[in-house]
Amino acid sequence: MSESSKEFFPDISKIEYKPESKGDALSFKHYNPDEVILGKPMKEWLKFSVCFWHTFVGGGGADPFGSPTYIRDWEGDLEGIELAKRRIDVAFEFFTKLGIEYYCFHDFDVAPEGETIEESHNNLDVITDYLLEKQKETNINLLWATQNLFSNPRYMNGGMTNPDVQVFCYAAAQIQKVMDINHKLGGTNHVFWGGREGYQSLLNTEFKSECDQMAMMYKMAVDYKKRKGYTAQFLIEPKPREPTKHQYDYDAQTTLAFLHEYDLIDHFQLNIEPNHTTLAGHEAVHDIYVASLYGKLGSIDSNTGDILLGWDTDNFPMDLAQSTAVMSILLEQGGFVTGGLNFDCKVRRESVDPVDLFIGHIGAMDNYALGLRKAAKMKEEGVLKSMVVERYLSWETDPLGTKIKNGEASLEECVEYAKAKGEPKKTSGKQELYEMVRNQYLYG
Amino acid sequence: MSESSKEFFPDISKIEYKPESKGDALSFKHYNPDEVILGKPMKEWLKFSVCFWHTFVGGGGADPFGSPTYIRDWEGDLEGIELAKRRIDVAFEFFTKLGIEYYCFHDFDVAPEGETIEESHNNLDVITDYLLEKQKETNINLLWATQNLFSNPRYMNGGMTNPDVQVFCYAAAQIQKVMDINHKLGGTNHVFWGGREGYQSLLNTEFKSECDQMAMMYKMAVDYKKRKGYTAQFLIEPKPREPTKHQYDYDAQTTLAFLHEYDLIDHFQLNIEPNHTTLAGHEAVHDIYVASLYGKLGSIDSNTGDILLGWDTDNFPMDLAQSTAVMSILLEQGGFVTGGLNFDCKVRRESVDPVDLFIGHIGAMDNYALGLRKAAKMKEEGVLKSMVVERYLSWETDPLGTKIKNGEASLEECVEYAKAKGEPKKTSGKQELYEMVRNQYLYG
Amino acid sequence: MSESSKEFFPDISKIEYKPESKGDALSFKHYNPDEVILGKPMKEWLKFSVCFWHTFVGGGGADPFGSPTYIRDWEGDLEGIELAKRRIDVAFEFFTKLGIEYYCFHDFDVAPEGETIEESHNNLDVITDYLLEKQKETNINLLWATQNLFSNPRYMNGGMTNPDVQVFCYAAAQIQKVMDINHKLGGTNHVFWGGREGYQSLLNTEFKSECDQMAMMYKMAVDYKKRKGYTAQFLIEPKPREPTKHQYDYDAQTTLAFLHEYDLIDHFQLNIEPNHTTLAGHEAVHDIYVASLYGKLGSIDSNTGDILLGWDTDNFPMDLAQSTAVMSILLEQGGFVTGGLNFDCKVRRESVDPVDLFIGHIGAMDNYALGLRKAAKMKEEGVLKSMVVERYLSWETDPLGTKIKNGEASLEECVEYAKAKGEPKKTSGKQELYEMVRNQYLYG
Amino acid sequence: MSESSKEFFPDISKIEYKPESKGDALSFKHYNPDEVILGKPMKEWLKFSVCFWHTFVGGGGADPFGSPTYIRDWEGDLEGIELAKRRIDVAFEFFTKLGIEYYCFHDFDVAPEGETIEESHNNLDVITDYLLEKQKETNINLLWATQNLFSNPRYMNGGMTNPDVQVFCYAAAQIQKVMDINHKLGGTNHVFWGGREGYQSLLNTEFKSECDQMAMMYKMAVDYKKRKGYTAQFLIEPKPREPTKHQYDYDAQTTLAFLHEYDLIDHFQLNIEPNHTTLAGHEAVHDIYVASLYGKLGSIDSNTGDILLGWDTDNFPMDLAQSTAVMSILLEQGGFVTGGLNFDCKVRRESVDPVDLFIGHIGAMDNYALGLRKAAKMKEEGVLKSMVVERYLSWETDPLGTKIKNGEASLEECVEYAKAKGEPKKTSGKQELYEMVRNQYLYG
Repeated sequence: MSESSKEFFPDISKIEYKPESKGDALSFKHYNPDEVILGKPMKEWLKFSVCFWHTFVGGGGADPFGSPTYIRDWEGDLEGIELAKRRIDVAFEFFTKLGIEYYCFHDFDVAPEGETIEESHNNLDVITDYLLEKQKETNINLLWATQNLFSNPRYMNGGMTNPDVQVFCYAAAQIQKVMDINHKLGGTNHVFWGGREGYQSLLNTEFKSECDQMAMMYKMAVDYKKRKGYTAQFLIEPKPREPTKHQYDYDAQTTLAFLHEYDLIDHFQLNIEPNHTTLAGHEAVHDIYVASLYGKLGSIDSNTGDILLGWDTDNFPMDLAQSTAVMSILLEQGGFVTGGLNFDCKVRRESVDPVDLFIGHIGAMDNYALGLRKAAKMKEEGVLKSMVVERYLSWETDPLGTKIKNGEASLEECVEYAKAKGEPKKTSGKQELYEMVRNQYLYG
Repeated sequence: MSESSKEFFPDISKIEYKPESKGDALSFKHYNPDEVILGKPMKEWLKFSVCFWHTFVGGGGADPFGSPTYIRDWEGDLEGIELAKRRIDVAFEFFTKLGIEYYCFHDFDVAPEGETIEESHNNLDVITDYLLEKQKETNINLLWATQNLFSNPRYMNGGMTNPDVQVFCYAAAQIQKVMDINHKLGGTNHVFWGGREGYQSLLNTEFKSECDQMAMMYKMAVDYKKRKGYTAQFLIEPKPREPTKHQYDYDAQTTLAFLHEYDLIDHFQLNIEPNHTTLAGHEAVHDIYVASLYGKLGSIDSNTGDILLGWDTDNFPMDLAQSTAVMSILLEQGGFVTGGLNFDCKVRRESVDPVDLFIGHIGAMDNYALGLRKAAKMKEEGVLKSMVVERYLSWETDPLGTKIKNGEASLEECVEYAKAKGEPKKTSGKQELYEMVRNQYLYG
Repeated sequence: MSESSKEFFPDISKIEYKPESKGDALSFKHYNPDEVILGKPMKEWLKFSVCFWHTFVGGGGADPFGSPTYIRDWEGDLEGIELAKRRIDVAFEFFTKLGIEYYCFHDFDVAPEGETIEESHNNLDVITDYLLEKQKETNINLLWATQNLFSNPRYMNGGMTNPDVQVFCYAAAQIQKVMDINHKLGGTNHVFWGGREGYQSLLNTEFKSECDQMAMMYKMAVDYKKRKGYTAQFLIEPKPREPTKHQYDYDAQTTLAFLHEYDLIDHFQLNIEPNHTTLAGHEAVHDIYVASLYGKLGSIDSNTGDILLGWDTDNFPMDLAQSTAVMSILLEQGGFVTGGLNFDCKVRRESVDPVDLFIGHIGAMDNYALGLRKAAKMKEEGVLKSMVVERYLSWETDPLGTKIKNGEASLEECVEYAKAKGEPKKTSGKQELYEMVRNQYLYG
Repeated sequence: MSESSKEFFPDISKIEYKPESKGDALSFKHYNPDEVILGKPMKEWLKFSVCFWHTFVGGGGADPFGSPTYIRDWEGDLEGIELAKRRIDVAFEFFTKLGIEYYCFHDFDVAPEGETIEESHNNLDVITDYLLEKQKETNINLLWATQNLFSNPRYMNGGMTNPDVQVFCYAAAQIQKVMDINHKLGGTNHVFWGGREGYQSLLNTEFKSECDQMAMMYKMAVDYKKRKGYTAQFLIEPKPREPTKHQYDYDAQTTLAFLHEYDLIDHFQLNIEPNHTTLAGHEAVHDIYVASLYGKLGSIDSNTGDILLGWDTDNFPMDLAQSTAVMSILLEQGGFVTGGLNFDCKVRRESVDPVDLFIGHIGAMDNYALGLRKAAKMKEEGVLKSMVVERYLSWETDPLGTKIKNGEASLEECVEYAKAKGEPKKTSGKQELYEMVRNQYLYG
């Protein structure tokens, strides 16, 4: 039986919605899970999830210039499976107190990696039994699982894209096992993040051979999934660089190019992390928006980065303009299907108190809840939308506009039309007005 | 008849190959056009081209903070068609003296834009007659033509992606005309650069509708080309931003994603400019390399940028490591088919003397010529190549490697193999050694 | 007499404070000029100013890839002095309708540059007579004047830092004249922005000689000012690059280093522009904050940039977190002394309607007004401040802390203390909590 | 006695200068230590040093996404002082075989940190005895020592700039001890690198108080140094960010501003690392150049970064243009006084073989040796120099130029001169020519 009788955050009760409370860091000001917004409870629009790694494993606050800092008394002297179970107990108490209904993990976040594949698999079996028990007890479910193909030194030159067949096969063993345990736990998505799938130097790299290898692995996984009757949605998570100089899944559209090139486009969607998007040189919501437009937004790893820093900081998302933009996209696509809003965030290295974990998540949940409220109001009132519709109106009202969009016009017809109409009117883009109106919704 | 009897650079003779001369800026130290390298004359490997705009039109050295600076006496008080012809005379003298056999232009670089489409078309007819005459006289040919859909205020909100059907059709008129005149002049490529095809703000933009529009224009152009029996290769030139905040053709792979998405992949190749590649966050040769690997490297707009500056500087390429890397890729793919190495470079705003135009091009041509010599030596001796082959050897020698690459293996087989083999060997990536060997080739 | 009888924005009345109005772009929601906040009227805290160049001269929306776009019927066919006066009339109507009480200019924004220095000076005399008249009529005053040492081709290689003595002297003539007319108009500050004072390439540059030249110019200006009894505060405006690759006044602290190095520190303060600050790799408010801390914040060129773009976009500041942070710093230093909040902003190239000029400024003024309200509330309630005070408390309460701060402690004493006290406590930095509290102030 | 009888790289002999050898990674092609160049042996111009941390301690190849990878059999099961001594033995063998005569360390690179200050100091005493012995045996000397105030969790909120007095004092204890041991070992410099001296968030930071604290520490150190009669030159090493979001010693000039502000300018010089310089947005050699011009270039931490990556990669410097530029600056200032060229470089995480340590250093040494040869040739022939002199000639030949430089001219005099002379000549900056000539020196 689980140790769930033991309480690890005894001073913290379930976080409640208290819109009027002030100066109380341990309540929600905006997030009211069951309140219905545009026909759905907030919690369904938001589908918050917590990642296991940053919050319960991670490097303990280590960075390239410093040792671990976090103080986690609950770990005591535990090791191996016992430590893994302890972390799970803590995590489920944490999820429950926050009112979070989903979580995510890498294989060796939740279970210790063994000396051999068999030992690792055995550890995963033991731990997933335990997780299944916790899931049933709490009704907290698995949003997605993924394999860690980047931390172990064996993957230093790549997992699926390694120059050595043997490493590739080792990766296959992890992927297969994650598919199996994900199915066992009812995970609705399976994520692939290629942190070492890329190059450090073009001098020693066969770019295309490596991409061919990666495609072959995906094809085998698709085939295995079909044979097993598994249903979790495959998701690729783009990132342009870090740890590798250049990662093949650079951003959303680069990943779509790959999926098209290798005829895998029907089998994958994307898991987008805004902090990765900004590292690729795009606005934070760009990839979420593009993925959504092309029917490929599977899930979101929600966080924020510091655009002035050249690495992934995985900060808690605290910017209202950004959370509102994300929620507007989600409202437009009718919400998530298989995915959710996973907080792939970590408390700062200096935020060493366990309560900081709560504060970070509460702040971010409230920021997204307020973003949902703002986005819903914008959508209901439709002011910005109607400005945009007006802007593109000729494509609806002009018969040639419709004909072009339907693929029924010829170049000659367009040219004749241009000659007949003469110089077009210069129409203001009115960016300042859009920003003013947006600000009125955001800030009152 | 052309004014080609008049000489505009009377103090400058044909630039000769003088490998031993020192302190003479007006000769080539490395470029010997007819010297055969790996079975082809240097000039065929390199296929140098000069762009008409930076060197004979441009903004005269204007930048966002300053007025034109260049001193071009040859323009005198000429205007309109007369000025256009004068520039062409100067250009062909310049090409001839440099020994450059190709050139490129935007429609309204070579001919003045008229008040109406008809007037513009008429100007283009007059000027292309003149160009055809010059081409025959000099045996200098058109590498590519393109339409300028970004300078005129009518395109401020986009050309193909404009919210107004009428502007779209105006763009169609330019595209059609460029197809016609390019065919007339025997241009082997037709370039599309979408400087205003993108967004300044997501607030006022329908991203997907705009991309749909762009795809429709391309489909009509493909159809028109087929009907007319034209043969110029269509090329898209990616750029991530500038002038627009985000351009839809962000980089090579984003453009490929678009072409796949809209089923246009068979009709287009890419024209890659390294300065655009670095603006997108990639190494200078990344997009050239990726395009080549996937059979999509049509042509190169050769120049260099300053990675510390966030805008396109179009400097002359003066870095040997980079020119060698580009030439290695070209050697690997057997050279250009329809495209060439177009110098999309401009002299610095402060380089106001006409002779600076020669110096910039000579420096860059010599840099590429030396890059070709270095790349050829590397290829002949094969040291780096054999190191790479060795690195990936298991994919050739291990039967499972071959099976995976042929798409005949299953996930289970790979897993079995991994279990049987146990922990893989950690093999050094040897980046420092690759760099040392590369440096020995580059610097002796 | 001035033409001020003519109205150029007949459809726009004076912009009023209407906090409850909705969907009315031409009113203030937050800016109520005479409302007293923390003991001063809003307009005194904010001291809004409009720059003459972006709004009444500028490049008309031209960018490096496109021609002017703006439609300014008021310019008609006017030229020279007549055009200059017309723009002034328009500007003062604009300032008046916005309720803006300060403006700024470069010498050749307001008056046409002549063929000779004498002619230029004469034009400036005529125009400043006219400006003086307008100032008296409207009670709108000059915040600062500056000389344009970057647009004219003569300055392509630098103004004060030019390799040619003659150009340096030409710059001196402009500086002297601006000192004279600024004094005549009662301008309270004189700004120096060194857009061409830097290098494009280290290869052709004597860095230190150029900085020596710049220092000599400043010393002569300080001396001239003293001799003339002028009182305008000298301000240097840092910018890291653009148009030049590297500008000597890179950022606030680099400029302070220069002022110290050349013993000019007592004669200058800084004019900080956040868009320049982000181009230098710092947070938007970093340089404002640093300048304020060291008593050097003279004035602010308020705008915002797009951190993903590598050039100065001079957007209107629309982000509440940023305006609140700026106003918090100003509250802390007790407001401006000689300077103000100058909108160095331009409407987007696509925002071609004259009304867009109003919308941009109103949106930005409201954003700053709301920022002031938020900052004042934060300051009054003191929650964040008290958290910070608590954090540094040991420096007040521990006797050794005070001793160290007073410069009375020795290294040995500190070491003894460290040994005696043993391992320090690890205290959480609580960044997430600070962000949560800040967000509660910003967004409710 | 030392264990130096044991050999750790038995397969590697002393690296020899073999300019003609090809395909031999374990020899120098360009570095010939005793060869005299411009009056000094190469080894004196270059003063190569190896840093202890990256090569003998470091994180073993760990990065934020991966575990250690390096295979260092020599560490066996050793721990504590024994491990420390073993690493020293290996290091001195390594230095000797490379012919490197200087090394550098952080306190807890060479000795294990103890549980208490006293224990740490004791460890340092034991180890420095051992180091002294090795130094005498090998005639390899200490270039500089520094204290690590960034790795231990106690410093997570800063060392000298910590909000807690107690942590500040702990830092003092480390600084004092490093001063003592550095003196004992004859180290000629003492470096301060403020990796945690900065801010993660302005919200919780008192910027000026923290800088005041830092200045106080430096003053106490200066005072202690004087009292003890120590002579090592104090050096500050700027870095803009990483690990901290913003570090107070952002770049060379920011650091100089600080030193001026707190009247410490006479007591410090700078230790410049080009990889930090590029992170601050400058060209790789910018800070070296600026520091040298203002008499503040104490030492160089030589390495290179990838400008496209936003973090410090500490790659071996392999670019000839850069090494030549650095050596040109050093030739100009007559070489190092107290400092040297320390390789603050690490082999890539994937370069796991011990021999890769040799290859990286040999490649970099050869690159610098060739850079020295090129720079010396440039200096001897003086072509570039004479072009620059010509460019600034009017400042020497025009009497007013000299008068201005001597501080004897007035603004009025300059204005009169400008009026008398009229419009200046526009002189080409000739950047392309400078680049061409530079390339002829670099590449032949």
